[in-house]
Amino acid sequence: MSLIVVGTMAFDALETPFGKVDRIIGGSATYVAWSASNFTQPVKQVSIIGGDFPKEEMAALEERGVVFDGVELVPDGKSFFWSGRYHMDMNTRDTLVTDLNVLAQFNPQLPENYQDCEFLMLGNLVPAVQMSVINQLKNRPKLIVMDTMNFWMETAMDDLKQAIGMVDVLLVNDAEARQLSGEHSLVKAANKIQEMGPKFLIIKKGEHGALLFHGKEVFYAPALPLEDVFDPTGAGDTFAGGFIGHLAASKDVSFENMKTAIIVGSAMASFCVEKFGPSRLQELTQDDIETRIRQFVDLVNFEINLV
Amino acid sequence: MSLIVVGTMAFDALETPFGKVDRIIGGSATYVAWSASNFTQPVKQVSIIGGDFPKEEMAALEERGVVFDGVELVPDGKSFFWSGRYHMDMNTRDTLVTDLNVLAQFNPQLPENYQDCEFLMLGNLVPAVQMSVINQLKNRPKLIVMDTMNFWMETAMDDLKQAIGMVDVLLVNDAEARQLSGEHSLVKAANKIQEMGPKFLIIKKGEHGALLFHGKEVFYAPALPLEDVFDPTGAGDTFAGGFIGHLAASKDVSFENMKTAIIVGSAMASFCVEKFGPSRLQELTQDDIETRIRQFVDLVNFEINLV
Repeated sequence: MSLIVVGTMAFDALETPFGKVDRIIGGSATYVAWSASNFTQPVKQVSIIGGDFPKEEMAALEERGVVFDGVELVPDGKSFFWSGRYHMDMNTRDTLVTDLNVLAQFNPQLPENYQDCEFLMLGNLVPAVQMSVINQLKNRPKLIVMDTMNFWMETAMDDLKQAIGMVDVLLVNDAEARQLSGEHSLVKAANKIQEMGPKFLIIKKGEHGALLFHGKEVFYAPALPLEDVFDPTGAGDTFAGGFIGHLAASKDVSFENMKTAIIVGSAMASFCVEKFGPSRLQELTQDDIETRIRQFVDLVNFEINLV
Repeated sequence: MSLIVVGTMAFDALETPFGKVDRIIGGSATYVAWSASNFTQPVKQVSIIGGDFPKEEMAALEERGVVFDGVELVPDGKSFFWSGRYHMDMNTRDTLVTDLNVLAQFNPQLPENYQDCEFLMLGNLVPAVQMSVINQLKNRPKLIVMDTMNFWMETAMDDLKQAIGMVDVLLVNDAEARQLSGEHSLVKAANKIQEMGPKFLIIKKGEHGALLFHGKEVFYAPALPLEDVFDPTGAGDTFAGGFIGHLAASKDVSFENMKTAIIVGSAMASFCVEKFGPSRLQELTQDDIETRIRQFVDLVNFEINLV
């Protein structure tokens, strides 16, 4: 059994209303790995990095059971770099710089020891690369979860739809669900997107929580109201890591267990935003995580005693 | 024991992306009464109407246990009229016409048979009128719930703060909570608003549900994802009616029971938006309401079985 995570390992420069950092560790696969490794190990990464990616970051992840056999190192290359500025509401941001660097030549080759994959997390990437990883697996994983973004809807819709047709769970935000389906109502959007292939759809709504759709069933997971959202970077990837990490640990891909997995993902994301980059995730204990999950239980728990 | 509802009884003209109506029954007290009377009767109205307010509408409400002794009829006057147009997202709207008519002379005088009031619902109105009703009650009610809006923050902030200081539960939407407190974080906003007096604060977030704050405790009630939101007019008042109706019926004003009351309010609001005006509320059976409340239980219910 193993979990494979496909995505970027990168550097970010960030500005939020609370501060500014010039060059910290980022990337979708990095956040997913920090989050998922709390629940399941090993986490087998598929990514590409330049010679500039810090060895101590790799070592810290290795200690958490993260495996790098599927990560291509380009010694003379530079790692992917993204820079952005968040607005006051933290829900919108401007991209300042996108330097693809080694990511431009990303053509992942799965090592043989990745063929035991049961759970596959496809972080946000070119849909063609996401499909290439699925196609290299000799046995179809028990569950394929895919993240994507509006950029691919605008530049590679045909590929994107083909990739979506190959996965079990699709993760998008509310604006992306509307764009992908052409429907304003999220219920109608969810119906249309499920017709494209995925039996499960998760619509992320940031501070408003997340919705899980499966056929006619729907589950609403709240987000924990926070005093401060310090830096939202990576929150979606951290959510995805907690979600698939819990599923991989429990080996149960039922709708009921996905509800729990969404709560776990939401709890992990609520930590992520408390500090810049993945730093808050790196210091968490099992106790911290369980306490936070209990807060989610209290947040939504109610008794119905109608008069 | 009785519930008093203070608010408007009026006419509305509405345009939504789904249609248009020229002149239908509206007003905050009308929606509250249709909603609350499913749970508790009598509902004693405090309002003002013109000679144009339809007798059959009064009769329909009277059949539901609504009492009009505190409603002033101005035979030669015209009832309050509001006209608005909703945008595609249904969360924003433009006011086209506001004709105060008889509302301009609203100076409620509580009848003696209203002095048994245990639950007081102050619908959105001039804060001075809201305070006048509180001051006319010889015994303080068990619970005072107050709705308001941004308009009073801009035109009567001193009065508004005085009124807020006299109530137990304040209802506002997220933008209003931010405006009233000067805080972007809803957690910080909730702390500041509680310092103004109300021990309970409900922040309504439309399609994103509602938050109940009480000291350091918080409860997140989802909104039911709907295929279509046909007309959001009155949804907030309908929510308030379900909320205070359940509390009045159960006579239990604990935080725990307020959670149930918010779910009841959310269920009622989810009906309200399905048709123009209060028409959907007028045809509901007890069975419809219980079935809808069960949907809310299913929507948020999850088991935590961590591995």
